Amino acid sequence: MHPYTLRREQVLQQIGNDGLAVLFAAPEQRRSNDTEFPFRQDSYFHYLSGFPEPEAVILLDGAAGTATLYCRDKDPLMETWNGFRYGAEAARDTFGFDAAYSISEWPQHIGKAILNKRRLFALWGQYPEHDRVLMQHWHTVQQTAGQRMLAEYSRAPDSLADLAALLNPMRLIKDAHEISLLKQAGHISALAHIRAMQKTRPGLSELQIEAELLHEFMRHGARHPAYNSIVAGGKNACCLHYVENKDILHDNALLLIDAGAEYQMYAGDITRTFPVNGRFSPAQKAVYEIVLAANQAAIEAVRPGASWADIHHLALRILVQGLIDLKLLQGSVEGNIESQAYKRFYMHGLGHWVGLDVHDVGGRWHNEQPRLLQAGMCTTIEPGLYISAAPDISAEFHNIGIRIEDNILVTETGHENYTAEAPKQIAEIEALMGG
Amino acid sequence: MHPYTLRREQVLQQIGNDGLAVLFAAPEQRRSNDTEFPFRQDSYFHYLSGFPEPEAVILLDGAAGTATLYCRDKDPLMETWNGFRYGAEAARDTFGFDAAYSISEWPQHIGKAILNKRRLFALWGQYPEHDRVLMQHWHTVQQTAGQRMLAEYSRAPDSLADLAALLNPMRLIKDAHEISLLKQAGHISALAHIRAMQKTRPGLSELQIEAELLHEFMRHGARHPAYNSIVAGGKNACCLHYVENKDILHDNALLLIDAGAEYQMYAGDITRTFPVNGRFSPAQKAVYEIVLAANQAAIEAVRPGASWADIHHLALRILVQGLIDLKLLQGSVEGNIESQAYKRFYMHGLGHWVGLDVHDVGGRWHNEQPRLLQAGMCTTIEPGLYISAAPDISAEFHNIGIRIEDNILVTETGHENYTAEAPKQIAEIEALMGG
Amino acid sequence: MHPYTLRREQVLQQIGNDGLAVLFAAPEQRRSNDTEFPFRQDSYFHYLSGFPEPEAVILLDGAAGTATLYCRDKDPLMETWNGFRYGAEAARDTFGFDAAYSISEWPQHIGKAILNKRRLFALWGQYPEHDRVLMQHWHTVQQTAGQRMLAEYSRAPDSLADLAALLNPMRLIKDAHEISLLKQAGHISALAHIRAMQKTRPGLSELQIEAELLHEFMRHGARHPAYNSIVAGGKNACCLHYVENKDILHDNALLLIDAGAEYQMYAGDITRTFPVNGRFSPAQKAVYEIVLAANQAAIEAVRPGASWADIHHLALRILVQGLIDLKLLQGSVEGNIESQAYKRFYMHGLGHWVGLDVHDVGGRWHNEQPRLLQAGMCTTIEPGLYISAAPDISAEFHNIGIRIEDNILVTETGHENYTAEAPKQIAEIEALMGG
Amino acid sequence: MHPYTLRREQVLQQIGNDGLAVLFAAPEQRRSNDTEFPFRQDSYFHYLSGFPEPEAVILLDGAAGTATLYCRDKDPLMETWNGFRYGAEAARDTFGFDAAYSISEWPQHIGKAILNKRRLFALWGQYPEHDRVLMQHWHTVQQTAGQRMLAEYSRAPDSLADLAALLNPMRLIKDAHEISLLKQAGHISALAHIRAMQKTRPGLSELQIEAELLHEFMRHGARHPAYNSIVAGGKNACCLHYVENKDILHDNALLLIDAGAEYQMYAGDITRTFPVNGRFSPAQKAVYEIVLAANQAAIEAVRPGASWADIHHLALRILVQGLIDLKLLQGSVEGNIESQAYKRFYMHGLGHWVGLDVHDVGGRWHNEQPRLLQAGMCTTIEPGLYISAAPDISAEFHNIGIRIEDNILVTETGHENYTAEAPKQIAEIEALMGG
Repeated sequence: MHPYTLRREQVLQQIGNDGLAVLFAAPEQRRSNDTEFPFRQDSYFHYLSGFPEPEAVILLDGAAGTATLYCRDKDPLMETWNGFRYGAEAARDTFGFDAAYSISEWPQHIGKAILNKRRLFALWGQYPEHDRVLMQHWHTVQQTAGQRMLAEYSRAPDSLADLAALLNPMRLIKDAHEISLLKQAGHISALAHIRAMQKTRPGLSELQIEAELLHEFMRHGARHPAYNSIVAGGKNACCLHYVENKDILHDNALLLIDAGAEYQMYAGDITRTFPVNGRFSPAQKAVYEIVLAANQAAIEAVRPGASWADIHHLALRILVQGLIDLKLLQGSVEGNIESQAYKRFYMHGLGHWVGLDVHDVGGRWHNEQPRLLQAGMCTTIEPGLYISAAPDISAEFHNIGIRIEDNILVTETGHENYTAEAPKQIAEIEALMGG
Repeated sequence: MHPYTLRREQVLQQIGNDGLAVLFAAPEQRRSNDTEFPFRQDSYFHYLSGFPEPEAVILLDGAAGTATLYCRDKDPLMETWNGFRYGAEAARDTFGFDAAYSISEWPQHIGKAILNKRRLFALWGQYPEHDRVLMQHWHTVQQTAGQRMLAEYSRAPDSLADLAALLNPMRLIKDAHEISLLKQAGHISALAHIRAMQKTRPGLSELQIEAELLHEFMRHGARHPAYNSIVAGGKNACCLHYVENKDILHDNALLLIDAGAEYQMYAGDITRTFPVNGRFSPAQKAVYEIVLAANQAAIEAVRPGASWADIHHLALRILVQGLIDLKLLQGSVEGNIESQAYKRFYMHGLGHWVGLDVHDVGGRWHNEQPRLLQAGMCTTIEPGLYISAAPDISAEFHNIGIRIEDNILVTETGHENYTAEAPKQIAEIEALMGG
Repeated sequence: MHPYTLRREQVLQQIGNDGLAVLFAAPEQRRSNDTEFPFRQDSYFHYLSGFPEPEAVILLDGAAGTATLYCRDKDPLMETWNGFRYGAEAARDTFGFDAAYSISEWPQHIGKAILNKRRLFALWGQYPEHDRVLMQHWHTVQQTAGQRMLAEYSRAPDSLADLAALLNPMRLIKDAHEISLLKQAGHISALAHIRAMQKTRPGLSELQIEAELLHEFMRHGARHPAYNSIVAGGKNACCLHYVENKDILHDNALLLIDAGAEYQMYAGDITRTFPVNGRFSPAQKAVYEIVLAANQAAIEAVRPGASWADIHHLALRILVQGLIDLKLLQGSVEGNIESQAYKRFYMHGLGHWVGLDVHDVGGRWHNEQPRLLQAGMCTTIEPGLYISAAPDISAEFHNIGIRIEDNILVTETGHENYTAEAPKQIAEIEALMGG
Repeated sequence: MHPYTLRREQVLQQIGNDGLAVLFAAPEQRRSNDTEFPFRQDSYFHYLSGFPEPEAVILLDGAAGTATLYCRDKDPLMETWNGFRYGAEAARDTFGFDAAYSISEWPQHIGKAILNKRRLFALWGQYPEHDRVLMQHWHTVQQTAGQRMLAEYSRAPDSLADLAALLNPMRLIKDAHEISLLKQAGHISALAHIRAMQKTRPGLSELQIEAELLHEFMRHGARHPAYNSIVAGGKNACCLHYVENKDILHDNALLLIDAGAEYQMYAGDITRTFPVNGRFSPAQKAVYEIVLAANQAAIEAVRPGASWADIHHLALRILVQGLIDLKLLQGSVEGNIESQAYKRFYMHGLGHWVGLDVHDVGGRWHNEQPRLLQAGMCTTIEPGLYISAAPDISAEFHNIGIRIEDNILVTETGHENYTAEAPKQIAEIEALMGG
């Protein structure tokens, strides 16, 4: 069975026979005047359909047990000018829906579908305009259902349920189809990082390296990056979300690249840091080895049943011990953790879920307890150290910003680092760069 | 204990310690240029507070077990120009809230109140602008809660629950405080109908009779009618919601008045029909007696455990039998009910709940079954017959429109018709009108 | 010619053959649950049509020279339940439009009407939802007009002109039809003030007096007050917009009533102040005579060519001199005016335009100069003195709040006080009240 | 003087001393979950400022003669996480504003700036949310200005003027700064087309060729394409806005590429069509030569004073004569033009303005006459022929879709084809492709 069909069936079971779920496709977004940004489907909508067009709605009717799609009409003239559209019939067959109709029929159908349900699931809060329209349909039903004195039994839902709360735990555990796409996204992302290492040399601009990354993504079928790429030479790496990528790369500086491909809607998210001239200075090497040790130790700790907090502390202790060894921090490891003094050099988290979204949904809590790791989860592991220039810091360390990030799948027996293909050992990098 | 406080406590118990309920005061509404309609508080907001001002919010926090009011600041200058305001402190004390704050603090407080609740109750759908604002606050919490990897436990509600579905069953069963106000509304409404009978004579306008009604309402403390009054002479009575009230009253015509006072927010709703000249014609009398018999029989049938459908059919059979007797319908009672032929003369329902709203909330269903009557419910009983002029109908019946409506409280032992004070026996009416 | 038709022709001339004007009827407004406030048409819409229904639009097309109405369809079933509707055909004939259509056709017509106009006049800013819809229609035209390379000439308006700025000067000068309605509104309002004087006695409530006013309005055909009535006994008069009207009237106190009827959409606006027990105390009399003198002197000064600022200062000097005479102010008239010390007792303006709105439109400026009075203008003249209780003020003056307000038409030769019928001389009042 | 400063001065002169102009920066737009599309400034906002950030407003005050910027605050913490911000002070100096303030002060300033202006210029209709906010500020001023009886002179604007109508004619004539950027955009676009020709071979995917284009754009500093690139092999070329770019390129097919770089906000827009295997078939050659002749003849006709309609007909006659010669049309040139029979093969226009937007603003009309060409205008010239497979057409022509598009600057003496660098002669193309 189509994975989308299977997921819809799981949703239908969870919403029960008194539930109705409604999802809206993402809107097209204007870039300037009459041009649009490349369309990107809503992640939830894609997760349950694979349908790639805007102006579409999915109804999952728990009472009827059916999944219905509403989409744009087939229209040869519009298609000559604006490109291909499936139309209802072909969309139904291709994407395995029980039924499909023209989007123009949706307003007539929704009222009947809402009637006599108890819970109306939607992605409330995510698209205010969709909220408004759906709320209005619901309110119309609410105003009439159950009020007439002698009519047939009827009722309106008394709960507007958050469909995200139902879908997020599903999206948290990746199925085989998702894992294969994530691995391909990781593979393509790794190829791009390898190419960036091969192409980088002093005098090029950050933008030219970004061009290499995107070209590599695209030629392997990943048309867009999963997020705006960070290509940050020297001190730019100390700005966590530097995306201007407009400076020239200098000899002796490091280059931090945080970039990942989006492959068939799934995100890769790799960070590598390497010397512009292909050879680490002693200070760069010293800091790098600390971050790498934290990266490797944390990855090793990933397995079913592991606690994220434990992994975080494992990595943190390595980073803090390293900073103490380099005399960038004074005192004990525990003391620096207690005082949060380390936040001067390491101010972000160790990782996040990755999937249809680069910062994927799922949350960290279950039944008021932290979620333990579980097979099928995918997380990044991305420790870093960022040393801005300052009078109290030895000049050799100034403007060193290093992050090493991999994408890790939790497996039944442990984990799989499916972005390991991108080199991170100093020797590997220097060899690759011919330094 | 204050009835409002008691009701808030009942709500707090029902929403549970993972629920939060939010209610907004009604907005002021512009009538023209810089003038406003007389402010009318939202019925739900009043039901839980008694607080009479706009620009206010109630939070009922199930975890803390507290009821908090946000309202306009005390402001002597504003008050000189625009009238009295309680201000937070006096409002808290007068209306028995656990705490009260300036409405300006509400946006800061709501985010914290939403956090870690499972259900966010509100009157979703009733005020789109309030929906939008509250949804935005909720979405902000949703976007951050539970996402951070190492933060304290936190969550956003996954259900936007319909507070009306919780409050409607409460409002359906009137408490002692409500019953006393409803009876006073009924009493004042009856006085106005009596006065209208006394004042009516051929040549006056419908509007002048409306003036008598409103004057009587107001001098007894009911500043506004519960709904726009219907004062319909002759054929105007056959237009069910005739509210123009602009014609002259003619000799030999009937006058149908459907008007009720709003007393301290509670609605009266009485209809009486009587001859403009004080004396019923034989045809008027014949039709009137049918409607009166239906009215009386239906009232008699009101008691705990009775089914509304049974009462409806009881009244309907009397009306249909009467129409057959008058040769306005042919065939059997059951045949005419089956064919709905009677709908030419009786096209509306037998009644509706009455309370804070004239068409009060509560609905007719409970656990997918019709609700049986229960002590504390208040319903109207309002059969009618409307005979428009037509070639196939004897001229003596033309333009006879009659409705007789009372307000009935279901008591432990049966019922109480608390609008009986308004005469409805032909002899009483003719005596009162000195006909 | 119908005055509405004449006004539409004047607008058509002013917008020119490259202008289009759009007006929307007022929306119905919900009072509670399924009840509405009595519908009040938008003043501008009424001024140009007389059409009394919601859900209607007027288009004035300067190029075609036509006035078109869009309104609700005739619908016997809807009318049985919800009351009379004109429908397009009857509306066109009754209100003298060149054409009328179903409101459902409006969205199709508006785009064509906008095309090739230079200025799109509307009451921008007054109804945000109407702004949004009209702006969208305009933007659609703007996006297509004039862009195609070989199409016929076309353009979109480049100016969204404020129709109020065009209509306000028209509404400022009342025509004969308006003057007759204003006088009737003034007459009915005066009758109500007379009745209030006759009915007032200690122990009654303010609300009961309000009831007398509204009853008098209504029985003379003025179904609604032009604004929420102020019936303010004793110290309540010092709150300028006291509208609660909920206190008991005490012997020895004054009663200030500011109330006016709305007659066929036109406002009356009269204030009178009189003793609850029918007889002025010496202190009340002393203050009253000052306000009356200011009222009379200001009225006398109203004539074509007079400056409002001059009239204001005339009244102000009388009030200030009076306050000095009563030792409530010290120093000179000019000194107190300079220091604004008088604002403790007289804090509002001397008057405002009156017409379709009680605070009527028109503004006070013309070509950057204050407008001089002109025949056809209607203004209130309403000086007042408000002496709250305070330690530094002699007790006999405490809680004396007095305002005397008339409605004055500027005539060719001077003025006409068409609310003079409401007594304001002390002797008249005391005689009327049988004091 | 900075070109942006100069343009602002031109606007200030045109809006006059009773005008105020307001421009809003483009909003950031969410791509998915917490990721955004790369920010693209609004073209008008950029044209008058060069300022590259969202959350900014420009006020041009005609009375004061000043240009003021409101922008985000400098904030080191936010910048560490989210990237660089100018802050008011640096923005003022860098972009030559008279003053700059925090965006948080804008709501306080706008009311004062609106007061006493006659015309409020904005890009009405383009951003509904901005319309709403600005309309509200204007309405607030409108409600108070000019109403008070004795206040200082004040007025609100009576015209909401379309700033686009003022800016479009300015943007239509490119200044030296714009021309240099357009030429660079054209140059980079041409390099990309050359590279695409060099890289194309059977078996590659359209997407891989798109990757080559974007890589070439980017490595020359053009970070984004000016519009979504069309890379259409074989029959895909007959879908005018085919942007899926997902098919494999087949031997013997043509490849149509319509792609242009956006360089420092200015658009290139080149189309070239060439054989996938590097060598035109006789049928492809025959059709290509027709389109090329039309392209060249039309370009030659571009000069100041030329009429666009004339150029259009010149190209059209060449295309139609060619179709007749190939026996794809029957009859005379004029006959086919009259009947529009040619639209089966040529259904789009000959060109459009190009500038900050790929479909640039400016319109085709001036004083109700078609605009004649003028030095400083930039237009595309893009004839095409599209022959879908059909039974009545010889198989050798099936699925030939050809468009040849250049960007032409009108100069004082004629024109300059600044995209000529991209080969379009058959011999050149075949040589380049090593065919």
